[in-house]
Amino acid sequence: MAKGHSFQAPTGTRDFYPQDMLRRRYIEKMWRDTSIRHGFEEIDGPTFEHLDLYTVKSGEGIVNELFSFKRAGGEKDYALRPEFTPTLARMYAAKAGGLAKPTKWFTAGPFFRAERPQRGRLREFLQWNVDYIGGEPGTNMRAADVETLCLLVDFFIAMGLEPSNVRIKLGSRDGICLSMSKHGLPPDLQQQVFSLLDERPKIDVEEYRRRALAMGWPHDFIREHDPEDRAIVRMGSTPEQIAKYFEVPIERAKEIYAEQMESGTLSDEIARQGIAEWCEFDSMIIRGLAYYTGVVFEVHEAGGKERAIAGGGRYDNLIELFGGPPTPAVGFGMGDVVLSLVLQDKGLMPEGAALMDKLSEPPASPRPDVFVIPNDQAESIAAVRPLVASLRRGGESARPLHARHSYKATKNIGKLLQEASAAHSRFAAIIESGTEATLKNLATGEQTQKVPVVEVAARVSTPG
Amino acid sequence: MAKGHSFQAPTGTRDFYPQDMLRRRYIEKMWRDTSIRHGFEEIDGPTFEHLDLYTVKSGEGIVNELFSFKRAGGEKDYALRPEFTPTLARMYAAKAGGLAKPTKWFTAGPFFRAERPQRGRLREFLQWNVDYIGGEPGTNMRAADVETLCLLVDFFIAMGLEPSNVRIKLGSRDGICLSMSKHGLPPDLQQQVFSLLDERPKIDVEEYRRRALAMGWPHDFIREHDPEDRAIVRMGSTPEQIAKYFEVPIERAKEIYAEQMESGTLSDEIARQGIAEWCEFDSMIIRGLAYYTGVVFEVHEAGGKERAIAGGGRYDNLIELFGGPPTPAVGFGMGDVVLSLVLQDKGLMPEGAALMDKLSEPPASPRPDVFVIPNDQAESIAAVRPLVASLRRGGESARPLHARHSYKATKNIGKLLQEASAAHSRFAAIIESGTEATLKNLATGEQTQKVPVVEVAARVSTPG
Repeated sequence: MAKGHSFQAPTGTRDFYPQDMLRRRYIEKMWRDTSIRHGFEEIDGPTFEHLDLYTVKSGEGIVNELFSFKRAGGEKDYALRPEFTPTLARMYAAKAGGLAKPTKWFTAGPFFRAERPQRGRLREFLQWNVDYIGGEPGTNMRAADVETLCLLVDFFIAMGLEPSNVRIKLGSRDGICLSMSKHGLPPDLQQQVFSLLDERPKIDVEEYRRRALAMGWPHDFIREHDPEDRAIVRMGSTPEQIAKYFEVPIERAKEIYAEQMESGTLSDEIARQGIAEWCEFDSMIIRGLAYYTGVVFEVHEAGGKERAIAGGGRYDNLIELFGGPPTPAVGFGMGDVVLSLVLQDKGLMPEGAALMDKLSEPPASPRPDVFVIPNDQAESIAAVRPLVASLRRGGESARPLHARHSYKATKNIGKLLQEASAAHSRFAAIIESGTEATLKNLATGEQTQKVPVVEVAARVSTPG
Repeated sequence: MAKGHSFQAPTGTRDFYPQDMLRRRYIEKMWRDTSIRHGFEEIDGPTFEHLDLYTVKSGEGIVNELFSFKRAGGEKDYALRPEFTPTLARMYAAKAGGLAKPTKWFTAGPFFRAERPQRGRLREFLQWNVDYIGGEPGTNMRAADVETLCLLVDFFIAMGLEPSNVRIKLGSRDGICLSMSKHGLPPDLQQQVFSLLDERPKIDVEEYRRRALAMGWPHDFIREHDPEDRAIVRMGSTPEQIAKYFEVPIERAKEIYAEQMESGTLSDEIARQGIAEWCEFDSMIIRGLAYYTGVVFEVHEAGGKERAIAGGGRYDNLIELFGGPPTPAVGFGMGDVVLSLVLQDKGLMPEGAALMDKLSEPPASPRPDVFVIPNDQAESIAAVRPLVASLRRGGESARPLHARHSYKATKNIGKLLQEASAAHSRFAAIIESGTEATLKNLATGEQTQKVPVVEVAARVSTPG
């Protein structure tokens, strides 16, 4: 080939020159720091996997969206990873017996889709994945769902976003299943139903109706999920408020309320953790992937300008499908492309020296700054999660901290202190009452007098 | 597919569980921090490229080592990147006119080879690439070569390695070309010669001789490069020392000396920068890739136990081949696989809380800590590079710093201060004599009295 031949990057991929790279590193740093402060540990898998890892759960249909290949002379089919969840399920299943319950993992790296590139969608992109695998003995799964949502909110706060900028939109596959059963649609049509309902925001309402009819769905069922009857409900609304606001009969409002709540506890827990203003129920949110069960969610720019910033939900059957024990799980993925568009649009992407200064800040430590431990009083136990949440978020008097608590059922303070030491935590904060805590330096064994709970953050931020 | 099917990662790829990931992040952090402190800026390209980006310079032979593929329904051939240099050359060529001279870039990410996995060699691995592109007006290229070697040495020091653990082995393609011409081998046989000479350490001496004869090389040329006459010479040795140490005739010693020095300046510059104890000339080092010109080098564990830890050299023609202006360049790549084996073997991979603490340290700042500026006196100009080198290395009284100096020919202090400000440097250090400097805080404009040059590091480490 002659000298001077000019090459270009493949369509839908990016060259990162130094300024582009600083912006990319800023997003990756914030993803990583937020994850670590919330007690998630980083993992990664191969950039390519055996092709059948992706076809086993999604069917052959996904093959057209994959970059798949063989090694020259080799027999096996591979594919560049289009998403992380199958790798995560494979890795969890391989070591399930030896892993903590719950296991909290995150990753951030390149992913690939062989689709036509368009605004907000490239063929190679970066994606952050956060997954909370396994339940908590003695609690339902709501705590895990909401802990994951709290992490999302803390990420947005760290980026300078506000509830007026982005909305966490929650939907419920359980609600759809209920509606299917009410209208006599058999469960084996679930994937067909989820798939078309997921497409509603992207297609014409007439096309929705035509395709639903063509598949033989009952008229009432089609009408109940018509895009023109989209219901968006702020978290915490009562059936009466829903009925009034949406001008729907109280029976329909109660159905919406039931879908939103899945028996009420999700909404309650969201309110209790102080993130209700970021969240709303949206009847159009259903997610396309086959593996979700129960609650699903997407994050959208509040003006609806871009594609989803993030998407996730519960996938309680997937670990078992990949050879592991039956294990509930919840997680989400967030790409860098739409997020960057939103940050640029809101003027929230730092530039120049300010961007460099952000990248110079100390990273979140894989060692917990503080491990919060209750005594055996109900009041103390109830104070654990709110304290952990506020330590992770930080504020005017303290930087955001890496804070953890135990997921074990034990109330034995000695065992909990052992767990804190095993995690290499710098401090343990033992909540003595709703308002006071004792701080213990786990390196020196030194213990403070009781201090007000509101001072824990400042004391751990500047030890000594 | 039935439930419980068990999947595995593709052969030659890795799953990174949390402990594996901490070790990986430690290596990546040290790669990144060292690069940034030496004034290199991070870039990245796509994970896959058009296949012809790799065949243009290496010929079709490389195709068997590549994972190559098409998009379903697409016509173009792609390949997972086996190395970074072609992407770097493409990116530099596309923007050459607007880039600084020199341009100093680094990257670290996943690369892929479809070869049979073996100890130290996987199908997916991480690689650090550091490239110094473009010359310096008024100097030869030696300064660039040695600045790159200094960065390598500082990386090894930061990892706890010593000259007794690893050796930077330098070879010279110019020396081989000289020898070819002396023995009447035409220049178009260069690639054939480099390729077999590069294989010498991996094959039997008899096989070398047989293959060389089969290709019709002259007997004298074959003997001159025979593996049994391998010459390893510490940097700074005179021809007389070489003759004595290796028991070779003084004529051969002078040839070795010439090869080692390429006119003497490389060895001199290595000695001047204080890294001679890490470096040696090795007649077996020639590198296999087609694009190298002049000096080449590999880093090996001192006992010769593993494959090369790193490899690189000068590639003065490659940018032009990719459509850019004629541009000299030097760079190297270092994979994580052999490096990890060496660190584990020497007990230098931190574990547990110590590993976590390493990862919690503040990263090197993309803002220079200090920009070193000479006045117009020769003594001051000569003091710039040694001061910058010692600031980057750090020591007992100061952490390693991000230090830069100008590559421009100007002696105008005002212009140099502007360059420092444009790079968002925190301080400028103006060398007033060989022993004294004035520090200027570029944010406040505040300027110190003259301070001893040896105190610059401490004053910049703890500003105020």
